[in-house]
Amino acid sequence: MLFHVRMDVSLPHDLDPNRRAELVQAERDRTLELQKMGVWQHLWRVVGLHSNISIFDVPSNDELHAFLSSLPLWEFMQVQVTPLATHPSDLAAQP
Amino acid sequence: MLFHVRMDVSLPHDLDPNRRAELVQAERDRTLELQKMGVWQHLWRVVGLHSNISIFDVPSNDELHAFLSSLPLWEFMQVQVTPLATHPSDLAAQP
Amino acid sequence: MLFHVRMDVSLPHDLDPNRRAELVQAERDRTLELQKMGVWQHLWRVVGLHSNISIFDVPSNDELHAFLSSLPLWEFMQVQVTPLATHPSDLAAQP
Amino acid sequence: MLFHVRMDVSLPHDLDPNRRAELVQAERDRTLELQKMGVWQHLWRVVGLHSNISIFDVPSNDELHAFLSSLPLWEFMQVQVTPLATHPSDLAAQP
Amino acid sequence: MLFHVRMDVSLPHDLDPNRRAELVQAERDRTLELQKMGVWQHLWRVVGLHSNISIFDVPSNDELHAFLSSLPLWEFMQVQVTPLATHPSDLAAQP
Amino acid sequence: MLFHVRMDVSLPHDLDPNRRAELVQAERDRTLELQKMGVWQHLWRVVGLHSNISIFDVPSNDELHAFLSSLPLWEFMQVQVTPLATHPSDLAAQP
Amino acid sequence: MLFHVRMDVSLPHDLDPNRRAELVQAERDRTLELQKMGVWQHLWRVVGLHSNISIFDVPSNDELHAFLSSLPLWEFMQVQVTPLATHPSDLAAQP
Amino acid sequence: MLFHVRMDVSLPHDLDPNRRAELVQAERDRTLELQKMGVWQHLWRVVGLHSNISIFDVPSNDELHAFLSSLPLWEFMQVQVTPLATHPSDLAAQP
Amino acid sequence: MLFHVRMDVSLPHDLDPNRRAELVQAERDRTLELQKMGVWQHLWRVVGLHSNISIFDVPSNDELHAFLSSLPLWEFMQVQVTPLATHPSDLAAQP
Amino acid sequence: MLFHVRMDVSLPHDLDPNRRAELVQAERDRTLELQKMGVWQHLWRVVGLHSNISIFDVPSNDELHAFLSSLPLWEFMQVQVTPLATHPSDLAAQP
Repeated sequence: MLFHVRMDVSLPHDLDPNRRAELVQAERDRTLELQKMGVWQHLWRVVGLHSNISIFDVPSNDELHAFLSSLPLWEFMQVQVTPLATHPSDLAAQP
Repeated sequence: MLFHVRMDVSLPHDLDPNRRAELVQAERDRTLELQKMGVWQHLWRVVGLHSNISIFDVPSNDELHAFLSSLPLWEFMQVQVTPLATHPSDLAAQP
Repeated sequence: MLFHVRMDVSLPHDLDPNRRAELVQAERDRTLELQKMGVWQHLWRVVGLHSNISIFDVPSNDELHAFLSSLPLWEFMQVQVTPLATHPSDLAAQP
Repeated sequence: MLFHVRMDVSLPHDLDPNRRAELVQAERDRTLELQKMGVWQHLWRVVGLHSNISIFDVPSNDELHAFLSSLPLWEFMQVQVTPLATHPSDLAAQP
Repeated sequence: MLFHVRMDVSLPHDLDPNRRAELVQAERDRTLELQKMGVWQHLWRVVGLHSNISIFDVPSNDELHAFLSSLPLWEFMQVQVTPLATHPSDLAAQP
Repeated sequence: MLFHVRMDVSLPHDLDPNRRAELVQAERDRTLELQKMGVWQHLWRVVGLHSNISIFDVPSNDELHAFLSSLPLWEFMQVQVTPLATHPSDLAAQP
Repeated sequence: MLFHVRMDVSLPHDLDPNRRAELVQAERDRTLELQKMGVWQHLWRVVGLHSNISIFDVPSNDELHAFLSSLPLWEFMQVQVTPLATHPSDLAAQP
Repeated sequence: MLFHVRMDVSLPHDLDPNRRAELVQAERDRTLELQKMGVWQHLWRVVGLHSNISIFDVPSNDELHAFLSSLPLWEFMQVQVTPLATHPSDLAAQP
Repeated sequence: MLFHVRMDVSLPHDLDPNRRAELVQAERDRTLELQKMGVWQHLWRVVGLHSNISIFDVPSNDELHAFLSSLPLWEFMQVQVTPLATHPSDLAAQP
Repeated sequence: MLFHVRMDVSLPHDLDPNRRAELVQAERDRTLELQKMGVWQHLWRVVGLHSNISIFDVPSNDELHAFLSSLPLWEFMQVQVTPLATHPSDLAAQP
């Protein structure tokens, strides 16, 4: 089941530089891990912003929340979740 | 070059039913055609809305505009275009 | 899997009165049917508005879209869909 | 009398960790208490956010305000209150 | 129980003048009737707009919805309902 | 001359507790004083929020500004002022 | 007593051309009349828009509403009213 | 003196096709004319929309309003005007 | 050439009191100076807010930017600039 | 390929003055460098704001993101990117 997720990251300018570096590295590790698991199907940078647009494939809402709230930068993000369905004109879905 | 496009369709309730049917069919045909060309890479329905979220892969801004404005329902849509870049944590982009 | 749905209905004032009456009756019938099926779990009126707030329980995003777009008043509604997860402090979810 | 309440929590990143832990635990205790009293009828997590959507059943506006402002995290929340009425197509309200 | 209600009226310019006159007269009659019943406690014009700000005193949400949706201009209004509680610094509420 | 005023209070979480207590007490005193003077005619709590909706009766805009800016919490408030006029359907204004 | 008023005019494209011409002429006449009376102190065009920004000087809110709602184009306008007070750094208000 | 102007065009779907064609042609002619005069310095299409972003160079606000309101599609546009100044880091403005 | 400027001031609550007092005094001095120069033609307080609405008369956009950015409180303001033109119904502009 | 970029800069008032001066100087240097490279084609100040409106000419979205995120003030900016296409009425694009 697919979900469209947009994450806008906003790190406070007075965050301790070491904590920042740790958070960013941990975020990167977790992001790669979720992609390897097949949960995080697409990940794109929004041009000019510290933001991404992503597609998640998960079996349920509960699991999607668990994955998103496990992100190390979660408390510094604005997150928007949009549930997706099959489009009747999607070429891949034609009989 | 990838672009994220959201289209929200709003057909006037007093549109002639025949014109409506023709427009919807033409939109569907053009949508399939652009997918077959490899331009329209992903097409998802937004749950509960007459809207889609799409990913286009085009060589330039001019071509993206030409494709979008060629859609039969274009004048009945609100369109939002967001340019995308490679994300440094995209698994597919790792060396 | 639960979803929170808000529907704001806006019928054009120049809609033919017979068509309006038919649509409203058909909407009511479909609403009761989806509740009997167990899909539409809660349905509340927003005070002062031609709007409702609802909770749907569906097995997938695709089915939620199919149910919502089957509503006779669907083309006259603004629909907002919010996926819900189990809250860790929900009394019913305590071990 | 039913009210729809959405709470969006935003804890400052520089909050003392001990105070944060105490607040979160106190919030959890109060949340369970209000559910046991029958006042807080439903409590759902909004997927991807530190937010909930809830249904309260209270005898008056004054009591709803007293309950909401008694929450330990109240000063860190954005709260939206929407009064609900019986919907004429609610299956449970049919004669 | 008090509720703050704002009503913004927007009559279509192509409404039949007779129907408009009837609606406006019926609205005025109903407005006076609800004031005489003690339900509609205050009614003020917002300067420069076809809008009012009102205070309703009703025993329940259901009755508030019934009163508001009984207004002849209801389908031409945007309505915002805000539940009110006693303010601890209200002079009239001091012991 | 009547004005509708909404005040949304937002106290910084790191405000010194003593200063906070003093400010809140001073605000309460000033609020009661303006009510006794007949200037602040109505004062209601918005349910669930640290906000009020009020009606002021003042001889001029200048005096309204002087009263509002004299509030001890003024610098921590968002204030919205809406001028009110007599409504032609106000029961108290009928000849 | 001064008020800042912004008026954004939006005439329907299918308005009868004769009625439009009459309305625009009547608006112009009334605008000049209110200026001659000293009520409408300043009138500026917002560059690029069918909008104006104005300063009214009136003895009360009721009279301001009466003047604004007497404008022939009133029902085709969005109106925003902002009450003004003397600024402590206004050169003309220095002792 | 430079101004940034964004124009979002919205033609009603029930506009007579001949009138539409005439308006679009007249708009195009006027657009080219203003460019030849040196007033309209840059004109870009916003990708995916019936909108443009433009730079005007005019001697005064009055002339900018005269040029914009002379456009045949002016009444079908939303227009946003932003005054521009020399940027201190503009390479062309370095001494 | 006239411009409408709205300034909304927001001073951080933890600003050093001496710096605050100096800034406010310097702002007042500069405000009076620009009025004496004839650049700042009107200055009004927005009732209830730490905001003003002003009319500037300047020969060019560059000079307007220079004046506004010279204000001691400039970095603590939200500024909105709206270019104004002569209104065809302005009494003072009639032939 | 052209992109319209708006940057709104917001420097925290408690930023260390030396760091601020260094950042502003580095920003200026990088801005001039990108202009000399031909990437940053136009740079205008928005009157009254610490903002600019710019036109970038880049071969791809990835390069645009690389340039924007290389700006020393990038983390203190709100950035909006709008892809531009050739306008059919652009004088320079006429055959």
